[in-house]
Amino acid sequence: MTPPPTLEFWFEFASTYSYPAAMRIAGLAKARGIALRWRPFLLGPLFKASGWTTSPFNIYPAKGRYMWRDLARICDALDLPFVVPPNFPQHTILAARIALVGLTQDWGEDFCRAVYRVQFAEGRDIGDRAALDDILRNLGQDAGTIVAQAQSDAIKALLRSQTEEAAAHGIFGAPSFVTADGELFWGNDRLEAALDWAKRH
Amino acid sequence: MTPPPTLEFWFEFASTYSYPAAMRIAGLAKARGIALRWRPFLLGPLFKASGWTTSPFNIYPAKGRYMWRDLARICDALDLPFVVPPNFPQHTILAARIALVGLTQDWGEDFCRAVYRVQFAEGRDIGDRAALDDILRNLGQDAGTIVAQAQSDAIKALLRSQTEEAAAHGIFGAPSFVTADGELFWGNDRLEAALDWAKRH
Repeated sequence: MTPPPTLEFWFEFASTYSYPAAMRIAGLAKARGIALRWRPFLLGPLFKASGWTTSPFNIYPAKGRYMWRDLARICDALDLPFVVPPNFPQHTILAARIALVGLTQDWGEDFCRAVYRVQFAEGRDIGDRAALDDILRNLGQDAGTIVAQAQSDAIKALLRSQTEEAAAHGIFGAPSFVTADGELFWGNDRLEAALDWAKRH
Repeated sequence: MTPPPTLEFWFEFASTYSYPAAMRIAGLAKARGIALRWRPFLLGPLFKASGWTTSPFNIYPAKGRYMWRDLARICDALDLPFVVPPNFPQHTILAARIALVGLTQDWGEDFCRAVYRVQFAEGRDIGDRAALDDILRNLGQDAGTIVAQAQSDAIKALLRSQTEEAAAHGIFGAPSFVTADGELFWGNDRLEAALDWAKRH
């Protein structure tokens, strides 16, 4: 039997356009018979290498104003609830580490979707430990145990190496999609093209 | 009779993603009964306000590498010939001024498409006066007369004011699309959404 085509989904929890991508990707991949690999990483170190100490949407106000409006239109068209979160970008390192724990178990993808929903649909701060605890509890997990695992040296090292791997793929923003033959696609608006490429090659 | 819906197409000749947008927009607008207004402007002054002295695709190499690959894939899907031009970004001020002359006559849109084709399909330098002369001759125009008009104080002032108007609309990149009710869309990948918005509102 031929293995199914695969696609890597590279995302950062603070990334605005990763929200619609994260909510759409599982259904679209399933419909095409594509196996997904969810790969959280951190944009901060990549941005730092570009000389940015915050999101370019904050550094370039016209671009930021446009992004929030564009994202509201996109979510509206997809019937996804959306609010501009109270602070941006949020601290995502603990959420990303927890995601890495969850993705080795069976609740990782649900956790990722919940983090985006809590931030961009409910307007909470995912840098706030209480928000992450609530998400874990809703998934039937013991928050204390999971957070302790997430803060282990092994998971910290894994997140660092995922971020280095992202840079090695040529990734500079999120969401990004990488096919088995190394083709890179960037942006929620390239999700369908990435899936089609993964299917064809 | 109700006037037809309208859409403003803001473009810069050095803008890579403006190439597929310029080649597609007339047919898509016509199919939807939308009247287009072609509005050339210069990105240079807007980039300078962001602290950039060249294209961000040159400043951020990973982003630039991705853009050329992405553009090649887009042109391939549209069956548009594409080559990476020998230098980037090219000097576009004379081409933009000529476009402003042509858009008050009946050859402006054909001139704009030809400038993109010469740059991104034939790989010539549109900052080179000979390339512009060739385009004008192919359109049945006297290059000397048109270039003299393009270098008049009136046209120079018009291009400056178009660029200021672009900034006032919140434009920070090209191609951009502005609807009659002031909605801004950015990028070749937002062309259909902009046309649909223009039609609905």
